[in-house]
Amino acid sequence: MSRVAVYPGTFDPVTNGHLDLAERGLRHFDRLVIAVLGNEEKRPLFSVDERIELLHEATHGWSGIEIESFDGLLVHFARRVGAQVILRGIRAASDFEYEMQMAMMNRKLEPELETVFLVPSEAYSYVSSRLVREVAKLGGEADRLVPPNVARALNAKLSRG
Amino acid sequence: MSRVAVYPGTFDPVTNGHLDLAERGLRHFDRLVIAVLGNEEKRPLFSVDERIELLHEATHGWSGIEIESFDGLLVHFARRVGAQVILRGIRAASDFEYEMQMAMMNRKLEPELETVFLVPSEAYSYVSSRLVREVAKLGGEADRLVPPNVARALNAKLSRG
Amino acid sequence: MSRVAVYPGTFDPVTNGHLDLAERGLRHFDRLVIAVLGNEEKRPLFSVDERIELLHEATHGWSGIEIESFDGLLVHFARRVGAQVILRGIRAASDFEYEMQMAMMNRKLEPELETVFLVPSEAYSYVSSRLVREVAKLGGEADRLVPPNVARALNAKLSRG
Amino acid sequence: MSRVAVYPGTFDPVTNGHLDLAERGLRHFDRLVIAVLGNEEKRPLFSVDERIELLHEATHGWSGIEIESFDGLLVHFARRVGAQVILRGIRAASDFEYEMQMAMMNRKLEPELETVFLVPSEAYSYVSSRLVREVAKLGGEADRLVPPNVARALNAKLSRG
Amino acid sequence: MSRVAVYPGTFDPVTNGHLDLAERGLRHFDRLVIAVLGNEEKRPLFSVDERIELLHEATHGWSGIEIESFDGLLVHFARRVGAQVILRGIRAASDFEYEMQMAMMNRKLEPELETVFLVPSEAYSYVSSRLVREVAKLGGEADRLVPPNVARALNAKLSRG
Amino acid sequence: MSRVAVYPGTFDPVTNGHLDLAERGLRHFDRLVIAVLGNEEKRPLFSVDERIELLHEATHGWSGIEIESFDGLLVHFARRVGAQVILRGIRAASDFEYEMQMAMMNRKLEPELETVFLVPSEAYSYVSSRLVREVAKLGGEADRLVPPNVARALNAKLSRG
Repeated sequence: MSRVAVYPGTFDPVTNGHLDLAERGLRHFDRLVIAVLGNEEKRPLFSVDERIELLHEATHGWSGIEIESFDGLLVHFARRVGAQVILRGIRAASDFEYEMQMAMMNRKLEPELETVFLVPSEAYSYVSSRLVREVAKLGGEADRLVPPNVARALNAKLSRG
Repeated sequence: MSRVAVYPGTFDPVTNGHLDLAERGLRHFDRLVIAVLGNEEKRPLFSVDERIELLHEATHGWSGIEIESFDGLLVHFARRVGAQVILRGIRAASDFEYEMQMAMMNRKLEPELETVFLVPSEAYSYVSSRLVREVAKLGGEADRLVPPNVARALNAKLSRG
Repeated sequence: MSRVAVYPGTFDPVTNGHLDLAERGLRHFDRLVIAVLGNEEKRPLFSVDERIELLHEATHGWSGIEIESFDGLLVHFARRVGAQVILRGIRAASDFEYEMQMAMMNRKLEPELETVFLVPSEAYSYVSSRLVREVAKLGGEADRLVPPNVARALNAKLSRG
Repeated sequence: MSRVAVYPGTFDPVTNGHLDLAERGLRHFDRLVIAVLGNEEKRPLFSVDERIELLHEATHGWSGIEIESFDGLLVHFARRVGAQVILRGIRAASDFEYEMQMAMMNRKLEPELETVFLVPSEAYSYVSSRLVREVAKLGGEADRLVPPNVARALNAKLSRG
Repeated sequence: MSRVAVYPGTFDPVTNGHLDLAERGLRHFDRLVIAVLGNEEKRPLFSVDERIELLHEATHGWSGIEIESFDGLLVHFARRVGAQVILRGIRAASDFEYEMQMAMMNRKLEPELETVFLVPSEAYSYVSSRLVREVAKLGGEADRLVPPNVARALNAKLSRG
Repeated sequence: MSRVAVYPGTFDPVTNGHLDLAERGLRHFDRLVIAVLGNEEKRPLFSVDERIELLHEATHGWSGIEIESFDGLLVHFARRVGAQVILRGIRAASDFEYEMQMAMMNRKLEPELETVFLVPSEAYSYVSSRLVREVAKLGGEADRLVPPNVARALNAKLSRG
C-alpha cells in the first residue's frame, strides 16, 4: 500500500517555509498532495490557478508531489485522493491551539485520517504568506522568504495593481 | 437573595459545548440567563430570533434557565437582570488571554460583577460555533457536535441557501 | 442548602493576591474553606501551623471563612467539608493549562465537584508566594505584596535563619 | 550620536497604556517618534489627523517626543527618521508570538534596526484601543482608560455618529 | 525499506494516553520502538525493568511494536534502531514549546531524523504519568486513566510503600 | 550620562544565543554588565569562577562589556553598577510569562529600573544552557551551539567527571 499525505493550505503565495515542510513530508510518504484551498471569497492576492502554477514551478522536478485545488471539506478531499494523513506545519504555540482544534474536528469527521505535525526549519519560523504579501505590497524585498518565481510574480502582480 | 449568572455569547448556533457549560452553571446558580448577543453586523448564519428559538428548544424543561437577547454593554445587561456573575467557558490558553482582558475591563466598568470561568467537558474541548458552521456549510455531519434540533436547522438553512 | 467552596494551595506564605481572591470568593459562597496543603517534603519556608496562623491573622473578622490543612486527595477533602466547588485563581495563560489538567482530573475523580476560576485583581497579577519568598530571602522589601503580619513573619523568620 | 526610537501603532485612539509605554521609552532615548499607521482601509474610528492631534494634546509638554504618520514599510520609515530601535509593548503571551514574528521579519529587512519590548504598567495590562472603542460605542465610560482629551473626543465622535 | 519510528518517554507508568498515541503511530509505521528513558537519578516510581514489563503486558499481541530502554542521546538510539522518525504526542500549547526546542536540537544533531507530532484522543488530553502517580499515591482510583495491569501494579507498589 | 544595562543569568555555560543577545545589547548601551548569578545551591556544572572565565574568553576584545558575579537581589546589584536597564532575551511565549512577572516584581522593588526584552537570532531560538549541558553529558556535539572555548571546556569537564 502506498502512503499518501495531504498538505492543505491557501498558499497565497507559497513561501520557502511551505517548501521546506513539503520537502520534509516527501521523505516520509510515497505521494504528497498539496491541496490548495480556493478561498475566493477572502480575495486572495493570487487566483487558485496562479497559486497552483507557482507551486508547480517551485516544485519542478520533485518526485512524488501533486498539486490540486479543493473547496469542500478537507476530509472528503483526503478520502478522494486516498490519503491516510493530513500534514501541517506548526511554528508557534498560538498556531498550535487552532491546529489542534482542527485536528480533533477532522478526527471526529473521519477517524481513520490522522493529522501529523512537523516543525519547519527555524530559518523560516517567522515566515507566513500574510507577512510576505504585506511586505511586498509596501515595497519591501521578499526575496529570501519565497522562491525566485514567486518573487518575480509578486513584483509583476504588484506593479500592475 | 437568589444568585443569578449571565452566560453571554453569540450562540450561532448553540453547540453541545455551550449546553454542557450551561448545565454546569445551573447547578451553582438559582437563575442562569443566557444572553444572546445580536451581532447582526457580523452577518450571523442564524438571526437572533432563530438562535433564541434553538436555545429554547435545546433547553426545554430545564429549570432556572432564561434566554434573552442583548445589544449594549454586557455589564448594563447584567445589572438589569440582577446578576452577580458573568459565566464563561474556557477551552484553551489562547481563549484565556482574551477572556482575562474582557474580565478585567468588565470589572473596571462594574466592580461588583465577577467573571467566573468553567472548563467544558473534554469531549467538547474542540467544538466551537465557527467550526460547526464551517463543517455544515461544506457538507459535513455536525450531528455529534450540536443538539438534534440544531442539526436539523443547519440542514434546512444550508439546503435553502 | 449552604454553598461551600474550597480554595486549595500551599500559601507559603499567603499573599495579597490570595487574599484578594478569597475575598472575591466569599461574596459568592456561604462558606469558603481555605485548604492549606501540608507539602512538608518540599521544605516550605513556613510550617503548616505557621501558615494557618498567618492566614487566621490576615482574615481576622472575615465572616464565612475557615482555614484547614489537608494532605490527601483534594477531592476527598472537598467531600468531607461538604464543598460543591474548588476555587482557583489564574493570572496567566501558562497557569491555565496546568490548572485545566487538574480540573479535568478532579472532575474524573469526583464528577459533582466543579472547579471555578476567578481572575485576581491586576494589581496582584505578578505576585506569587515563590517570588515573595525569593525577594524576602535576598533582603528585598515584600511589604506591598503581603499583609503586614506576613511581612513581619518574613523578617523574623529570615533574620533568624 | 543621539538615540532615536520609533513607537509604531494605529493609536485609534491613544490609551493610557500607550502613554505609559511612551513615557518609559522616553527615559531611554533622546528622541521617541510615535509613528501613526494610516490604516484607512480598516475604517478607523478616528482619522489619521485626528489621532495625531489627540496624541499631540496628550503628550503636550513632553520633551523629546515627535508624532508622525506613516504608510509604507516600517523599516523604511525608521531609516528616514534615523531610528536605531523599534519600541513595542507586550502585555500577554499571545501578543508576544505575533510581535516576535514581526521583529524577525523587520530584522531580515533591516538587520541594524533592533526591536525592543517593554512591559506596560500592570494597571494597563488589559487596556487596548479596540476595547476602548467597543466600550465607548456601547455607552460605557472609558474615562480611566484614556487621557481626558480622548474621553471627550470619544463622547463627541459617538454622539455625532 | 521498512519505516521505523521511535516513541521516547519515561513511561512511569504507561497511561491510556500513551497507548492511544502508540496505536495511532503503529498505523503509519512498520515498526514502532517505544524507548524507555532510564532516568534513574530522578527516582522513578517504577524501575526501568518494571516499566518495560508493564508496557509489554499492555501492548501484548500488537504487531510491529518493540520496547527497549535507552540512556544516552536519543538521536544515537534512533540511529541504532534504524528509525527515520521520532514520535511525540502534544496535548497543550505549553507542551509544544518545549517539544519544539527538543525537535530543533535533535534536528541539529541528526538532520535526517524528523520529529513528528500527533494529538492524543481528547479523552486523554489531561492524563499524564505525573498526575497518575500523584492520584494513586494519595489513594485515588486511577482505573480509567491507565490499563488494568498498571492499575494493579500501582496498588501493589503503593500498598507496599 | 553613560547608559548602562545589566544582563543577568546563570550562564552555565554561556551559549551562542547569549553572545548574540549581548552583542545586540552592546549596540544600544555604553556599558553592558553581564551579571553571573552564583546559584551554587543548584549545583551548576561550572563554578561561578569558571563561568566568568568562559565569558571573558568568549567576549575577548569586545568594547564596553564587563562581567561580574552577583548573589543578592538583582535590583540592588543593578543600582550598585549604575544601570538603568535590565536586559533579557525571550525566545518563546512560555518564557515570556515568567519574564513578565519578574519584570513587574523588579519594577515594584525599583521603579526607575526598566526591563528591556530583545529577541535573539532565530538561529539560536532553541538553544539553552540546559539543553547544551544535557547534550554534552550524553556525548553529543554541542559545537555549533556554544563558542569554541566552551566546547573545549565541556569536553574537559565531562571526560573528567
